[in-house]
Amino acid sequence: MTDPNVERKLVEIMRIINESDKPLGARLIADELHNRGYAIGERAVRYHLRILDERGFTKKHGYIGRTITERGKKELNDALISDRFGFVITKIEELIYKADYDLETGKGNVIVNITNIDKDDFDNATDIIKYAMDHGATISPRVGILEEDTDLDIYVPDGKVAIATVCSITFDGLLLNNGIPVVPVFGGVMQMEDYSPAGFLDLISYSGTSIDPIKIFLRRKATSILEAIDTGNGKMLANVRQIPVSAATRAEELLNIASKHDITGHLTIGEPGEDVLYAPIERGKIGIPVMVGINSVAAVEEAGIKVDTHPVSAVMEYSKMKKL
Amino acid sequence: MTDPNVERKLVEIMRIINESDKPLGARLIADELHNRGYAIGERAVRYHLRILDERGFTKKHGYIGRTITERGKKELNDALISDRFGFVITKIEELIYKADYDLETGKGNVIVNITNIDKDDFDNATDIIKYAMDHGATISPRVGILEEDTDLDIYVPDGKVAIATVCSITFDGLLLNNGIPVVPVFGGVMQMEDYSPAGFLDLISYSGTSIDPIKIFLRRKATSILEAIDTGNGKMLANVRQIPVSAATRAEELLNIASKHDITGHLTIGEPGEDVLYAPIERGKIGIPVMVGINSVAAVEEAGIKVDTHPVSAVMEYSKMKKL
Repeated sequence: MTDPNVERKLVEIMRIINESDKPLGARLIADELHNRGYAIGERAVRYHLRILDERGFTKKHGYIGRTITERGKKELNDALISDRFGFVITKIEELIYKADYDLETGKGNVIVNITNIDKDDFDNATDIIKYAMDHGATISPRVGILEEDTDLDIYVPDGKVAIATVCSITFDGLLLNNGIPVVPVFGGVMQMEDYSPAGFLDLISYSGTSIDPIKIFLRRKATSILEAIDTGNGKMLANVRQIPVSAATRAEELLNIASKHDITGHLTIGEPGEDVLYAPIERGKIGIPVMVGINSVAAVEEAGIKVDTHPVSAVMEYSKMKKL
Repeated sequence: MTDPNVERKLVEIMRIINESDKPLGARLIADELHNRGYAIGERAVRYHLRILDERGFTKKHGYIGRTITERGKKELNDALISDRFGFVITKIEELIYKADYDLETGKGNVIVNITNIDKDDFDNATDIIKYAMDHGATISPRVGILEEDTDLDIYVPDGKVAIATVCSITFDGLLLNNGIPVVPVFGGVMQMEDYSPAGFLDLISYSGTSIDPIKIFLRRKATSILEAIDTGNGKMLANVRQIPVSAATRAEELLNIASKHDITGHLTIGEPGEDVLYAPIERGKIGIPVMVGINSVAAVEEAGIKVDTHPVSAVMEYSKMKKL
């Protein structure tokens, strides 16, 4: 039992096979994994299936697919709690660790959100995303555009195009890479007044939840991004991280350097131990609120275009991402 | 500045008046408070308005309603963060403190959820609620039925009937009243298999969120209560509280006594420091999962009847609540 990330996927694949009453192939498993929030492609599923076969947990029946073995069923029952469901903070911390974006060169992995859009809606959707990004609603104006099989690690369903937007958790990655201990604390709904953030209206902690707070607000249709851009007053999504007070100056320098390569969008740097835009911050820490990349796709949904968004999904090479 | 509960309502009322471009009367303010999750009636609003007038924060203009004064606007800006938004745990702890239900006599206040139902849907809805309660989906089979002005503290909109269901947080109130320190930790989605709880599929922590976890799951339509009752397999909502290990025996006694007056529905009592149905529990504590009262009204929504539910809303005299 090695990489917990791999183990989690193995358990999820076994659950899917176990729940089916007939043998399942890699494509169907990839579809179902995707429904459950795992953004991995068909080829990666095949890789995981080979591991399961080797361990004797699944059995291949020619081309019709796999079934679970008795040994696999037992293993599934014994699976770790952390495989039963993952607290979202665990997944976020894994991605923070994987993000190796270099501030000076502008190269390396950033953390991205993945949004699947019907091919027919693609042009309209990107117009709105560009509009939101041009008006500073997101951490970066760059996107990655993925079609089926563009990236083996990121699954794009048939008939869809995926847009990768830079996730605000990328800030946490670049702070960590520069030696600053950082913890994402809250996702929330930010009230905008006269084109400025006036304060959080709702907050959900990143710790102790198995559903991403930003996804919760997205699902609740809690935003009015387009209104906020047009009139200055509306609701956007933002999140907050904490860093030690002593790292404040260094963090500010880093955030300034980051803006060279279009990574911006932090709203303010809080005062030591003080609430920042009404988000409570621990003693000895300062809070940094950042506009989330999801705002751009929330605007697409506000315009009545149906999309399917997975926040904090994967990492992607930033130098390959472009402005719309 | 006295009772924080009153202060919070005062601030919310000032915000509502401030956001309006014309004077507002008590009825409109009560409607809007209700939309914002404050279950207080028109008469209670009048009481709060008199306090605001006395403090010089609002001004009455004969029968057309109130406006906010300059002093009121300043006060609103200075309002405490906890008045900006309340973390749900604060509201829950207030209600736990107010619940004075006596296990032996079966009298005293329990904590209730309030669900507003169109008068036309009332008969169908209560049939389903009874069905869910008869099948053990809730902490108690008793309900309170409220029409407009039945209870001055609980607001019932025009054309609606409100049903009060016993909230699972009532358990926390009765443990606390008997000297057991108790903390509600998670709300979650429970997988039922063969008519038994198999484990949580999702969890959201009660601390650090301004939106009730159970409300989040309700809004996500995460349940399949009717299926769980009919086939034994489905998803219900449950929550978990922690108590010190040393209080386990006493808690078990209390829960047995509670069942005398139809308060049941706890699923199990966990082992010291061990996860209970996959919910993580701190060292030195035990976890007690309980089916939430909301399951009965979630079933109503599954049947396609539109209702409006406010979990953990108010307290109500238990001896006045009846089985359907």
